[in-house]
Amino acid sequence: MGHEFDTDTAVTEVSPGTFEAGMEEGWLVGAGVNGGYQLATVARALGALAPGKPHPLSITAHYLSATRPGPATITTRLVRDGGKVATVAGDLAQDGTGRITALATFGDLAALPDAPVRTTHVEPELPPVEECFSTSMAPEEVRRMAPLMDRFDMRIDPAYAGWSIGKPSGEGIIQAWFRLSGDRDLDPFSLLLVADALPPATFDLGMPGWAPTIELTVHLRAMPAPGWVKVRHETRNMAGGMFEEDAVIWDSAGRLVAQARQLARTPRPQ
Amino acid sequence: MGHEFDTDTAVTEVSPGTFEAGMEEGWLVGAGVNGGYQLATVARALGALAPGKPHPLSITAHYLSATRPGPATITTRLVRDGGKVATVAGDLAQDGTGRITALATFGDLAALPDAPVRTTHVEPELPPVEECFSTSMAPEEVRRMAPLMDRFDMRIDPAYAGWSIGKPSGEGIIQAWFRLSGDRDLDPFSLLLVADALPPATFDLGMPGWAPTIELTVHLRAMPAPGWVKVRHETRNMAGGMFEEDAVIWDSAGRLVAQARQLARTPRPQ
Repeated sequence: MGHEFDTDTAVTEVSPGTFEAGMEEGWLVGAGVNGGYQLATVARALGALAPGKPHPLSITAHYLSATRPGPATITTRLVRDGGKVATVAGDLAQDGTGRITALATFGDLAALPDAPVRTTHVEPELPPVEECFSTSMAPEEVRRMAPLMDRFDMRIDPAYAGWSIGKPSGEGIIQAWFRLSGDRDLDPFSLLLVADALPPATFDLGMPGWAPTIELTVHLRAMPAPGWVKVRHETRNMAGGMFEEDAVIWDSAGRLVAQARQLARTPRPQ
Repeated sequence: MGHEFDTDTAVTEVSPGTFEAGMEEGWLVGAGVNGGYQLATVARALGALAPGKPHPLSITAHYLSATRPGPATITTRLVRDGGKVATVAGDLAQDGTGRITALATFGDLAALPDAPVRTTHVEPELPPVEECFSTSMAPEEVRRMAPLMDRFDMRIDPAYAGWSIGKPSGEGIIQAWFRLSGDRDLDPFSLLLVADALPPATFDLGMPGWAPTIELTVHLRAMPAPGWVKVRHETRNMAGGMFEEDAVIWDSAGRLVAQARQLARTPRPQ
């Protein structure tokens, strides 16, 4: 019996390069299936084309239309196998309608050299887990809208959670502790989920509402250590009806294991 | 008579969705053709598939092998035309060998709403243009290696140019004023070039040498105003033989017109 993340992102090759997957309703947030969960599912199929290169080093998805719970078909294409890395592309569709299209270069995170390391990025400072706001404390109606929240344990830093009581910090930042439910440790595929699991940083600008992702790119930089990760989202440029959102994921060993950026649409005024 | 940037990035459709282009040797840097120039050329072809959506809002390329001067073929695919935006994909190859593969969502930068704007990103501070180091002052042997440098006027901030005399700042930052040669104003396509025109930020970490791009994503956020732009590159996480490099481009009106990020390989010790 695998963990629900593994069974819910599993794909089955039904003909060369074509995979079937099921978009499970447990990953719904509002009317659509979470973008990071979709990305992880597509990545499973893409990885099958890159033997010996088990992890996406860089993966980009463009979101075409809202994915619904139900079956999906992923068609893939090996762009180039360069030996140590391979570049692959794929499209996820439901009933012939494109949902997301992705492009990735796979490699082996476990085979990367340990040195040199020069990191000037600073690990986010968060209060202890037990002093952060647990999403399991969210009101029943919020949890019904976002069953996704039952799939993991997220503890939001109170300093950037004021939007929940109408007092956003205005800085465009959200940060949280994160782990999957059931104490399953994170791996490179579940880090793709983590990169798009927090509420949009626009909440902290006083703009609640759904912020549809146009494009999301994740760089996986190291194998995550067991335990909680810290995730920080920040937007620094909301303009033209769009905003960028940068995400960093730090593991329990104090390593920057993933960097992500998305371009999303600004939520409509509510 | 167009500007050399326009003639050198021009593409001709030879059959539906297939384009011919010439990779001109004027854009060489070392043994390969500049990645931003390639990206701009592919974007020309992709744009032909998105009538009424003239600009890439987000474009990602994965670099497969070094592009040489000479003819190239670009094959394209319309992934989805969503009305106001269209998602398109394309591959550039030379003699059947894949060079780069790209995925983009096009829209119309001129049609974006003016408000609201919430930018916490801070415009880079640079000394006046005339106090910065002009690449036209580079030694003859450097200019012969990089004819690319004759295509534009780049003035590097002396604070982050110490690597040229063996004294890098160690911060992983390079910033410069930039304009095309011949006073041609920048547009969305030439901004794709600007996003990958500066020396790699690893120079400023004391690591000279070529830093091959694995993946480059550019978000175009506004139409650039006429005149010089400011470009700032920064890496904050060199590890595992790779580094990320963020680029911001600010126009003469003080607007953040583009944000880019690439994942590149760390230069080999020299």
